[in-house]
Amino acid sequence: MVWGRKRKRFFLLSGILGLLLITLANFSPFLSVKAAEPKAMSPITTRPAQATAGCTKKSASSNRYQITGNANTVQWGFFSKKSPPVLAVQSKDYVTMDLITHHAGDDYARMIQGDPGIESIYRWTATEKGVSDRGPGVHILTGPVYVCDAEPGDLLEVRIVDLKLKPSGNPRYPGKTFGSNAAAWWGFHYKNLSQEPKPREVITIYEMDATGKQQWATAAYSFRWTNQTTPDGKSHGTIDYPGIIVDHGKVKETMDVLNGVKVPLRLHIGAMGLAPKEADIVNSIPPGYFGGNIDDRHVAAGTSMYYPVSVPGALFSAGDAHATQGDSELNGTAIETSLVGTFQFVLHKKAALTGTILDKVDYPLLETPDSWIVHGFTFRNYLAELGPEAQTKIFQMSSLDPALKNCSTQLRDFLMNGMNLTEDEAYSLMTVSGDFAITQVVDANWGVHGIIPKAMFEKKRIKSKPIA
Amino acid sequence: MVWGRKRKRFFLLSGILGLLLITLANFSPFLSVKAAEPKAMSPITTRPAQATAGCTKKSASSNRYQITGNANTVQWGFFSKKSPPVLAVQSKDYVTMDLITHHAGDDYARMIQGDPGIESIYRWTATEKGVSDRGPGVHILTGPVYVCDAEPGDLLEVRIVDLKLKPSGNPRYPGKTFGSNAAAWWGFHYKNLSQEPKPREVITIYEMDATGKQQWATAAYSFRWTNQTTPDGKSHGTIDYPGIIVDHGKVKETMDVLNGVKVPLRLHIGAMGLAPKEADIVNSIPPGYFGGNIDDRHVAAGTSMYYPVSVPGALFSAGDAHATQGDSELNGTAIETSLVGTFQFVLHKKAALTGTILDKVDYPLLETPDSWIVHGFTFRNYLAELGPEAQTKIFQMSSLDPALKNCSTQLRDFLMNGMNLTEDEAYSLMTVSGDFAITQVVDANWGVHGIIPKAMFEKKRIKSKPIA
Repeated sequence: MVWGRKRKRFFLLSGILGLLLITLANFSPFLSVKAAEPKAMSPITTRPAQATAGCTKKSASSNRYQITGNANTVQWGFFSKKSPPVLAVQSKDYVTMDLITHHAGDDYARMIQGDPGIESIYRWTATEKGVSDRGPGVHILTGPVYVCDAEPGDLLEVRIVDLKLKPSGNPRYPGKTFGSNAAAWWGFHYKNLSQEPKPREVITIYEMDATGKQQWATAAYSFRWTNQTTPDGKSHGTIDYPGIIVDHGKVKETMDVLNGVKVPLRLHIGAMGLAPKEADIVNSIPPGYFGGNIDDRHVAAGTSMYYPVSVPGALFSAGDAHATQGDSELNGTAIETSLVGTFQFVLHKKAALTGTILDKVDYPLLETPDSWIVHGFTFRNYLAELGPEAQTKIFQMSSLDPALKNCSTQLRDFLMNGMNLTEDEAYSLMTVSGDFAITQVVDANWGVHGIIPKAMFEKKRIKSKPIA
Repeated sequence: MVWGRKRKRFFLLSGILGLLLITLANFSPFLSVKAAEPKAMSPITTRPAQATAGCTKKSASSNRYQITGNANTVQWGFFSKKSPPVLAVQSKDYVTMDLITHHAGDDYARMIQGDPGIESIYRWTATEKGVSDRGPGVHILTGPVYVCDAEPGDLLEVRIVDLKLKPSGNPRYPGKTFGSNAAAWWGFHYKNLSQEPKPREVITIYEMDATGKQQWATAAYSFRWTNQTTPDGKSHGTIDYPGIIVDHGKVKETMDVLNGVKVPLRLHIGAMGLAPKEADIVNSIPPGYFGGNIDDRHVAAGTSMYYPVSVPGALFSAGDAHATQGDSELNGTAIETSLVGTFQFVLHKKAALTGTILDKVDYPLLETPDSWIVHGFTFRNYLAELGPEAQTKIFQMSSLDPALKNCSTQLRDFLMNGMNLTEDEAYSLMTVSGDFAITQVVDANWGVHGIIPKAMFEKKRIKSKPIA
């Protein structure tokens, strides 16, 4: 009996321990600030004439907004300091917004049909387009959001509070959502195919459980790209224009693709960032100091991105939602899908940064529950470094070697400025504990990210964050 | 009372669940084959005249051997098909061997003194050297081990059954072991220093608990390299010769380095592999198809490396033991330390590979409990591709871009040959789930590794391993 009681106590203690471990394993500091569902507030569906007028109304508590993704609330293919904002927010406000994939045209029935917002974006007839101004890049970006009081030199913290799959709007696919992986001409693999026909572009459509219960994607089918004609009568022998609706009468669908393979989901945002100051219209493809199309799979719910502000109001936009991708995004794209993201914007004024862990951060910095991640590119600021033709030149100058150089320089500076290390300490520590991975090799300004684990540092030696 | 009983049952079940989860989290398939401690058998301390004579004695069960690391059992700086083996083993035999760091001279008292084997290796007087033949590379490699019946075309599986820190032999440091991180001239960071003096080389000595209870390293002190004179009267203004014993009267030790920082340990082996066929003496620095100095932190206990055999007997050697390093080994080295490794060698004959998951593997492939990891380099086989001057040229041709190309090609081939995927399936899957990271940028033939998670694949679609 004594043993029995001891055994019970043993199990009881193990139970508590077990639960504690499970809780700890799932702990994420940001989840504790996870927003309650936005209050019943009319979603924003149009771009107002003068959103920044909202900056005069300051409220004591955080506001919560919702932006529906549709032809009025997105811009297609660029970041721009000239874009009229969809919404103006105060620091600490929350915004839930649709992030509509620019690859939905690969399967109209599964990724566009039945969702009025997505339909409005992709609408294209012989006489008109839902979004007429497409390019020079490819991403459908919701926004921009104007952050009141944000000025050049400030740092904008964007907390990703929540990220959810957006269900298919087509009643034929209840509880499902879909994504597209395009092995495209800009893919790293493209000149390295072993089998005929060479070259070729291949679209693989992936299926997911939109309820979030099944945390994986399975391939539904694939097809090889064939010549497609758009409503303006132009031919597209390759994937060379955003928003082409594929005519499935003209492609051969291969079923039984990746049979018996379940791809784990890692929902994240491929492209989000601020408007750069260097040009009026900036191609959405190459990432830079302003963020943009970084394509880092770690940019997920529970993390924060810090961006240097370079124009008044910061002008944040987001899109290029991903169900998952591997580091390098090798064949050109992730599993491109539509997500719904909830963000909290926290403005850190320049003067408040001195002496904090964010001092002198002039690159896109990610904070996850476990780590600091610094993003480097072939060019730190290609817009400034490559002169007037920068937006063309960058597509011919891609390399990982300078991306690692820039990334490691920035990580060194983060450790010196933010963690108070000497240069000798910084280089030793990043060498023995910092993992450098290939972010992407398909966005012209190729990316490397360096990861520094937080748990290494005793609390006493970590500088505080600025009080926002 | 009912609630009380239910609560007890709840805790009981949680306890079982908790324990189960903890067990599962720690489960590693290889640990189940973990060797019992080798039977009392005299350690091998000398290189026999004719080790291969042992190939005639076949025993029914696996043999267990032990090799002491000393001046007789190591070779310094090269792989060679001409090296007389220390030991001949049958497939499935176990060998425990010392892996002695080539950076022990950075702190003689902590890393050499009191260990007769290490002392014998580093012994260097005005008239003689313990190991006279040093170079052209730098690593102290234990071996080679001759694997009986291994022939060109076969695949050698090297299971790392166990890996332990080797305690300091100096009684002044009971229960401690030490490692050195050298920020050296071959480091990627070297031309990118922000502070004076530039350039400079910095050694950071790390301290660890040799009992394995504390799974982290702390920095003990650091010093900047100063001109060192070796017993042959030569001056070394830079780290340009293996095995220099630093005169601590000539350097200034900086204490309080990385105060409040605990670097998590990830014990692994930097350099292990087989003798290449292309040259008699192969510099140990650049890795290649034969393995060698891959410097992948994943090459740890519980994993298996697969190497293509290119010379009779395979001729396996290992060294360059690491307490930890980050992906890229940025400043030139890991925390270089001495370890004791236990390996099991499993020979897969060429004929048995057809139709298995290892079919056509002609690159170093790592299997971990969770993943397959393919290693690519700037050149797949620099010895063959770069001609007679290959071993010089490779030091001028380093780049990550071709390393990613080679790595992704090999991973594609692994998925096509080993996993039965079409090329279209392979490129989609590796893009959406394969993570490519920077292995090292300091070993001339720079490295990228691609990781494919095993859990994605249903059992039915995984080809079997060959029966060894």
